[in-house]
Amino acid sequence: MNGAQALIRTLADAGVALCFTNPGTSEMHFVAALDTEPRLRAVLTLFEGVATGAADGYARMAGKPAATLLHLGCGLGNGLANLHNARKGRVPVLNIVGDHATQHVPLDAQLQSDIETVARNVSPGFVRTSASTAALCRDATDALAACIGPPGGVATLVLPADVSWGRGGAPQAFAPPAPPAAADPQRVQSIARLLAGAGPRTAFLLGARALQDEGVLQDLARIARRTGARLLAEVFPARLRRGAGLPPVPRLAYLAELAAVQLAGLQHLVLVDAKSPVSFFAYPGKPGDLLPRGCALHTLAAPHEDVPASVRWLMQAASAGAAEPLLQPARRPPRPHGPFTADRACQAIGHLLPESAIVVDEAQTSGIRLPSMTAGCPPHDVLTLTGGAIGQALPCAVGAAIACPQRKVLALTGDGSAMYTLQALWTMARERLDVVCVVFNNGAYAILNLELQRVGATGSGAKARAQLDIGNPALDFVRLAEGMGVPARRALTTEDFTQALEHALATPGPHLIDAVLPPALTGLRLRALPRLLDMLAHLPRPLARAVKRGIAP
Amino acid sequence: MNGAQALIRTLADAGVALCFTNPGTSEMHFVAALDTEPRLRAVLTLFEGVATGAADGYARMAGKPAATLLHLGCGLGNGLANLHNARKGRVPVLNIVGDHATQHVPLDAQLQSDIETVARNVSPGFVRTSASTAALCRDATDALAACIGPPGGVATLVLPADVSWGRGGAPQAFAPPAPPAAADPQRVQSIARLLAGAGPRTAFLLGARALQDEGVLQDLARIARRTGARLLAEVFPARLRRGAGLPPVPRLAYLAELAAVQLAGLQHLVLVDAKSPVSFFAYPGKPGDLLPRGCALHTLAAPHEDVPASVRWLMQAASAGAAEPLLQPARRPPRPHGPFTADRACQAIGHLLPESAIVVDEAQTSGIRLPSMTAGCPPHDVLTLTGGAIGQALPCAVGAAIACPQRKVLALTGDGSAMYTLQALWTMARERLDVVCVVFNNGAYAILNLELQRVGATGSGAKARAQLDIGNPALDFVRLAEGMGVPARRALTTEDFTQALEHALATPGPHLIDAVLPPALTGLRLRALPRLLDMLAHLPRPLARAVKRGIAP
Repeated sequence: MNGAQALIRTLADAGVALCFTNPGTSEMHFVAALDTEPRLRAVLTLFEGVATGAADGYARMAGKPAATLLHLGCGLGNGLANLHNARKGRVPVLNIVGDHATQHVPLDAQLQSDIETVARNVSPGFVRTSASTAALCRDATDALAACIGPPGGVATLVLPADVSWGRGGAPQAFAPPAPPAAADPQRVQSIARLLAGAGPRTAFLLGARALQDEGVLQDLARIARRTGARLLAEVFPARLRRGAGLPPVPRLAYLAELAAVQLAGLQHLVLVDAKSPVSFFAYPGKPGDLLPRGCALHTLAAPHEDVPASVRWLMQAASAGAAEPLLQPARRPPRPHGPFTADRACQAIGHLLPESAIVVDEAQTSGIRLPSMTAGCPPHDVLTLTGGAIGQALPCAVGAAIACPQRKVLALTGDGSAMYTLQALWTMARERLDVVCVVFNNGAYAILNLELQRVGATGSGAKARAQLDIGNPALDFVRLAEGMGVPARRALTTEDFTQALEHALATPGPHLIDAVLPPALTGLRLRALPRLLDMLAHLPRPLARAVKRGIAP
Repeated sequence: MNGAQALIRTLADAGVALCFTNPGTSEMHFVAALDTEPRLRAVLTLFEGVATGAADGYARMAGKPAATLLHLGCGLGNGLANLHNARKGRVPVLNIVGDHATQHVPLDAQLQSDIETVARNVSPGFVRTSASTAALCRDATDALAACIGPPGGVATLVLPADVSWGRGGAPQAFAPPAPPAAADPQRVQSIARLLAGAGPRTAFLLGARALQDEGVLQDLARIARRTGARLLAEVFPARLRRGAGLPPVPRLAYLAELAAVQLAGLQHLVLVDAKSPVSFFAYPGKPGDLLPRGCALHTLAAPHEDVPASVRWLMQAASAGAAEPLLQPARRPPRPHGPFTADRACQAIGHLLPESAIVVDEAQTSGIRLPSMTAGCPPHDVLTLTGGAIGQALPCAVGAAIACPQRKVLALTGDGSAMYTLQALWTMARERLDVVCVVFNNGAYAILNLELQRVGATGSGAKARAQLDIGNPALDFVRLAEGMGVPARRALTTEDFTQALEHALATPGPHLIDAVLPPALTGLRLRALPRLLDMLAHLPRPLARAVKRGIAP
């Protein structure tokens, strides 16, 4: 048995069922070995950013890691952006990166590069070059343990070609990962004490492991009901379970000015698998740390700790077990009519979203109304842009669809974002995945139109504006999708869009809807926004509270 | 004047005329400052790999660096593969990578990553995060000096948002780069001595700076004529000047078995801006070092040394100044007819290639006959895959076309390669570049079909073969091109292809030809190749010499 065959056996024994690939010559023995192991499915991608994003999406939904198979430092480089998203979301991904044979490295051939250095940034917890065929499978189980965690993350195993083709590979059994650390009873007790009569000046900030499990959400909602404390979700959780019959948890807003309104007046913020809120970018003269002055920070469960047990424990300590949690009533917006806007597209999605859908949301400016439009839809999962590296929605949807073949996946993306990793469409067609892609095609890096003003950049003219304009030439996503084998429709009106969405949701296999929209934030509305945001931050409290409710229900 | 404005002034003063961009929020002040400096042209790309590949192609043809503008570590990551190609080709590229504001870094916001580590692999010579607005322009001139060299390379300047927006920017004058080091007279003399009656057992191996200048090529050809020594080009030079009336220099073959035949019997190999030949990949039981046993290695000019002066000096020392160089006669293949194959597509290119064309060659298996078919065409430049990181041809063509607006650029790419950085087509359409893209669409990672056998990977079956098959679903490059605003035609026959090429070359602006081909190396031919290659390595000498002449004229 050669190294590659033993490695694949080891992975399959450990429960790794998927490998998202874009191989080259140095990975040919791994590729050849695929036929020796029926339990490992290999899904080919045309670009490494698709492979890494798919592995991220798969793990978010399957609750276990997939492997990637990448070609040398350049292949890993192409996958970095979506690995960054996985790292920030603490999503387990196991990279297998082929390298030159050991004896070839000193020759500095054309493709020679420092793979470990490239990997360091996205997988700080585990980067190892396997030194021998005999050591390979132990290295692989170490990598798997590191990526599963807790906390999970990206682990990178560099696989030299001679280690792969060498004889004497010995599969290794994988020990189940250690359970997460239990919460500190003193911490739980002290949080329980401050909850007594806390009211809305105390809030919980929830990360993915508090947001993706209905039981945990129910427990947290009981605590909130019993104590009056508020529940908030981090701005970009890896996975968020929501919809009718579930406790509603508003997400912190992307815009720091709005998030500040949501957080204003807090005296205690309790973190559950989350970090203290900071603004996405820095802006001249504005604080990046969004924790209100004087607000005390508490940690109920850190990422390496047992979230469900900690929450349950706190619920008992707070005598909240019998409280009736506030649940989201079932409601859908009506079928939209009128001029076609991004808001109406979101309304159509809310009108039609099927039960158990998985929504991968990278709709940026166009998706602002999405949370409110889908709040009362049947229960669904939302996967978000954890690390802010755009080009995530389409690859992530590939992985989610493979993890959950019985569920509809809705991938929402801006036109700019879609173009980073559009090759994901080909894998959707090849694997006949049930993914409906909606491209909000407004011909602009619309969010940058806003950011250009928010950062206070002055003196910009035609050259600067051209840098944000991707409408010249206009991108035709129908042709782009069809070029990769995905059926597509263009929507120019609200009715077009709603019908196209209805059709796509009812028809198996991948679909793309090119939603041709006016810019999301233009003209007066865009120019007014920075001033509006400033005003919001200084609203009288009752008005601010009303705004809060409207932001991200 | 803020930092960004001062930086842009400094770059323009230093002669940097182009910036290939894909900006985000942290680069908005740089973007706004573009309107303050008419001498710096900003060309937007939809993906960072296009920006970096375009900067590479621009510098190869303009002989001076362009800047890139990239967004944080993730944007740089997306650009790594083509920066790797620039690094390996010693092509000057100046990366400007926006970062969070200094005070925002410790908050570990979503997009926070270790940019310097990501940069290290591709720009080992210069990575610096500018610490203040006052220091910025000095940092920029240091970066520029590092990237221009000699030897040239990639330099990365990390630009925190607050350094960009801060007041007190002070433009810096750029001192012209130091001239390259003169060659060592003793080395020149000793090489001159061994050349006396050297004959064909001595060869020169030439890198880009020996290959791109007609004067240097003529001098080398005089030396070859006078001494009988042979001229060889490195396998993937950054730029190669060739065609009718110029000294022909065959390139070393990509396949190590063929390169070994080219090098067999050599007693002396003289490097001119090149490194000792090694195989592209390692293969079990085969040497990676291609220098024949017993062959002595000499360096006439290292990458940091003055190539033209060294060559001229040697020409004089070898009394070769009056020798009549062998020049390539003008000849073109006839218009092709018969079943459509990659070879006939290459023949059509040879039949039609216009004077002064720039050929960006990433045609992999399909382009095997290209060198022989175009050898006697009017003088042209060839830009090749210096670092082996695929997805280079289309971006590189963007940069070459911008550097040389009066010349036709022909970008030749495989279907697999094209899909890594297809977004380059949009920039071609936007900037109305005179680029004719030919996609050799054989539905496969054809080269991997070959490599799978060459590495001796056995036991592969349907799963392995599926990893090399990109014909399911078939990629339709006509739709893909039209989706980005580039007119395109599908060619199914030799006549289609020749007509489409004729039309594209005669019509300004970008064009794409989707050359739908049978797999380049299939069936019997593919299975027979490894054995054929082994046989070649053991040919009787006269036969081998005939083969050598046929490989890469």
